[in-house]
Amino acid sequence: MTHTDPPGAVPAPIDVPEAARWLAGRVVRTPVLSAPVIDRLAGARVLLKAENLQAGGSYKMRGGLFAVGRLAAAGRSGVVAQSTGNHAVAVALAARAFALAATVVLPVDAAATKVARARAAGARVVLAGTTVEERLAVARRVSDETGHPIVDAYDHPDVVAGQGSASLELIEEAERAGTPLDALVLPVGGGGGAAGACLAATGRPIEVYGVEPRGCDSLARSLAAGRPVAVPPAPTIADGLRPSCVGDLPFAVLRDRLRAVVRVDDDEIAAAFRLLLLELKVLAEPSGAAGLAGALRVAADWRPHSLGTDHGLRSLGSGGTRRLTAAERLPAAAGARQRTIGVVLTGGNVEPELVARLTATARIEEEVAVA
Amino acid sequence: MTHTDPPGAVPAPIDVPEAARWLAGRVVRTPVLSAPVIDRLAGARVLLKAENLQAGGSYKMRGGLFAVGRLAAAGRSGVVAQSTGNHAVAVALAARAFALAATVVLPVDAAATKVARARAAGARVVLAGTTVEERLAVARRVSDETGHPIVDAYDHPDVVAGQGSASLELIEEAERAGTPLDALVLPVGGGGGAAGACLAATGRPIEVYGVEPRGCDSLARSLAAGRPVAVPPAPTIADGLRPSCVGDLPFAVLRDRLRAVVRVDDDEIAAAFRLLLLELKVLAEPSGAAGLAGALRVAADWRPHSLGTDHGLRSLGSGGTRRLTAAERLPAAAGARQRTIGVVLTGGNVEPELVARLTATARIEEEVAVA
Repeated sequence: MTHTDPPGAVPAPIDVPEAARWLAGRVVRTPVLSAPVIDRLAGARVLLKAENLQAGGSYKMRGGLFAVGRLAAAGRSGVVAQSTGNHAVAVALAARAFALAATVVLPVDAAATKVARARAAGARVVLAGTTVEERLAVARRVSDETGHPIVDAYDHPDVVAGQGSASLELIEEAERAGTPLDALVLPVGGGGGAAGACLAATGRPIEVYGVEPRGCDSLARSLAAGRPVAVPPAPTIADGLRPSCVGDLPFAVLRDRLRAVVRVDDDEIAAAFRLLLLELKVLAEPSGAAGLAGALRVAADWRPHSLGTDHGLRSLGSGGTRRLTAAERLPAAAGARQRTIGVVLTGGNVEPELVARLTATARIEEEVAVA
Repeated sequence: MTHTDPPGAVPAPIDVPEAARWLAGRVVRTPVLSAPVIDRLAGARVLLKAENLQAGGSYKMRGGLFAVGRLAAAGRSGVVAQSTGNHAVAVALAARAFALAATVVLPVDAAATKVARARAAGARVVLAGTTVEERLAVARRVSDETGHPIVDAYDHPDVVAGQGSASLELIEEAERAGTPLDALVLPVGGGGGAAGACLAATGRPIEVYGVEPRGCDSLARSLAAGRPVAVPPAPTIADGLRPSCVGDLPFAVLRDRLRAVVRVDDDEIAAAFRLLLLELKVLAEPSGAAGLAGALRVAADWRPHSLGTDHGLRSLGSGGTRRLTAAERLPAAAGARQRTIGVVLTGGNVEPELVARLTATARIEEEVAVA
């Protein structure tokens, strides 16, 4: 069996509401959080879906569980997966839940906490190369040898649908609260979560944005080229966003439905990480924090007096901790409707050493600059 | 007006359900979280009420808002408060919400983040001494000069009732989920939260425990002596639990209703902090993490094969990271009902430097030892 449809093929049916129904009661219904200082910094209402509190530590549990559960129901005895980490952890946990064998392939430079978590869930862990192509080659060989199907981290309709259920819960909860989303922001690795978000938002006037670290902008380049374009993974603290190429299936969804890609640098991601940790009081991995960093850029573009390129978290980056001026802190002009931006905090599996490094550079002035 | 009743006096009416009704919609309805690894480590179901996600970063917002709101309704124009930090932040925010003036008195060695947050909320901040007596003397002088009443951090019926509302929400949510609490654990500084927990549990078969850092065990010594006993504050990473004496009003409640006090050391608190951060993915301040450290000791005493003094998080303390044996990881004996223990994670206002220090010493082995 092949793991992907060829580029340009009609995507397999991706049913986000069905995935959401199937997953209800099987995954954690994660809370939607907010913090006044983040709203003030954005000049908009920011609703954060805390999937870092999800089982397995990331929203990848949704796609992994939905896909593996269906394969178990179809009588398969094992599964194979490759990923930068969280999808591997999710598939390992899902396989254990359905009593299937699991082999997961991670890069040799994977976050140690993710390797440890996949092993703790009982999976066979194989470390191979640093690129998605290298991991896929190994995964295909294991699949051929064992007869176990590959559950791809993004090029799989059930995985995309499962990931999309996080966005759907956020969209629906924002509506119930009387603050429907104007925009929805997801970080992009292989693009499965962003594609799921686009499908979850279908029929609603919600702009969906993807966020990529500078230098890991396969989706942005792919959208410009009109076809999936691989980029050599650049160094970034957002280890989960390093896939060298967006998936074919997500690309087929995203090219028509994504509003735009926002690029962020490591300083912005680090500042968003500290904001989430010290103000919202939750631990997001840098890949998850990248979503907030991107959302602050999107919100900055909404403001009547945009700060140009020095907006969002750039003003809080480690390179400069100037206080926002009173004008910059102002909410939207009187009479203007407060806009709402949703962010899926995709995961929270972080190396303790990285937490230590990112918090050691925090300063009280930064922390309260926006209070 | 005096801030306390004399020892032995009949406590003023403390109505936790009334406080809960008044606070509904005025404070964040914080989620109740759990993590499989924490349950396995405890050998019991552990439900954590995430008041670190509360407005102002701690459950002190509840008592502060309830007390200040009532004073505003009574026509007062300002308030005075003293505390190790979080109560001062709460009163400052509450006063701003009701457009009252606020003066808050903190120790000279208060956590800088708490001082900054009180100032950011618009309060006049006075730093005075290191003991509760020194702060109270200053607060009384300010109260005399301004005519503004003191909202004590624990010796105030509305503050105790407000704090108790967090416990009541946890108790009721556990009942709705079909897993009613067998025990409820709160860290003890001045004792207001633990007293509120006892009152919230009234009429239910729930054992309420208080947790104190070793050397800051005013409540334990007071219960033994039958009257409030001050202790010189000992060094501890749990800055919020350093009051040198339990309050008279909380003591009057606790002496009759508290099941026991559990003493924990800094190694256990640090290990609980890391467990909450890296497994539950939330930032609790060490004073809040002390509650989980104490809960793990309570749960260890429930186990059929108790590990004696080397139970709970001692096995994960920085002094030793031995893996738990298979027997130690076993859940309760087959047929025994799974017991449920509730913990109020009281706050999340932590110095970035302390986060860095506590995570720098974490090891992957520790993190997954209980997976």
